Amino acid sequence: MPDLAPPTVLRIAVASEWVDYNNHLRDSFYLHIFSLSVDGVMDMIGMGDAERRATKTTIYTLEVHLNYMREVKEGEEVEVRAQLLGFDQKRFHLFLWMHTKRLGEAPAATSEFMLLNVDTSEGAKPAPFRADVAHALGQLWEKHRHLAKPQNAGRSIALPKK
Amino acid sequence: MPDLAPPTVLRIAVASEWVDYNNHLRDSFYLHIFSLSVDGVMDMIGMGDAERRATKTTIYTLEVHLNYMREVKEGEEVEVRAQLLGFDQKRFHLFLWMHTKRLGEAPAATSEFMLLNVDTSEGAKPAPFRADVAHALGQLWEKHRHLAKPQNAGRSIALPKK
Repeated sequence: MPDLAPPTVLRIAVASEWVDYNNHLRDSFYLHIFSLSVDGVMDMIGMGDAERRATKTTIYTLEVHLNYMREVKEGEEVEVRAQLLGFDQKRFHLFLWMHTKRLGEAPAATSEFMLLNVDTSEGAKPAPFRADVAHALGQLWEKHRHLAKPQNAGRSIALPKK
Repeated sequence: MPDLAPPTVLRIAVASEWVDYNNHLRDSFYLHIFSLSVDGVMDMIGMGDAERRATKTTIYTLEVHLNYMREVKEGEEVEVRAQLLGFDQKRFHLFLWMHTKRLGEAPAATSEFMLLNVDTSEGAKPAPFRADVAHALGQLWEKHRHLAKPQNAGRSIALPKK
């Protein structure tokens, strides 16, 4: 049987500078934790900090969607799981869940990212992934293509219809 | 003639702790600037910090969408403009643009928020806006309902079709 759970890409405690006056994680710092988690995915596909510097390539965030479901408090440890929703020659599409022990399987928040490979050798230009990165994305996709589409993937924002 | 431009709700310089190793504003701190801008909108509708504490009400972020278009550097001053896209008894729907002098009318990023009014007098429960806040939202809506729908409003994330 293949491993059918999205892998954990980050565990981190909520820092005191990330919370509001109620000691709850502020909206922008949910994204900060998801953004640190994307760094974890970059490490998995051979686009860690050292490789990015050595190859003069980087990853730009093009677009993000966030759903806030439950509060998280200062000092709580959060766990972020990631699922690859797809990729092409120069982009990859990620979905992430934030969990805590207290909340169990009910996520505190979800996030969706569209990310772009960029060549920084002369200015900054969109570019195809290096062959080894494309291979790593392909291998991840072979595992993740069997996972169910996450409930919040592909959402757009609108007031509920009356 | 009514004023047909979305109002500026925040001007702030990009802090050194908000940038990455390339001195570019990190993705999560674009949202931090937009989130501070939502505080500016809350002040406009009578939901500033003092009113929230005095009335035991607050605003929760339910959902956010971000589009990253251009880089912003450490020390640059950014200006955020806001447009109300709609509201109901307990939610409001905002659209925000981030501009810099250097970029002129080309936005560095846009963001869309769905926000919820919450009564914190016993736990935290969704609740209708106070009458004065509903009135202020109605007045803002009378100005903004004539504005064009922003280009990035209502987007969902997907890879380009082949």
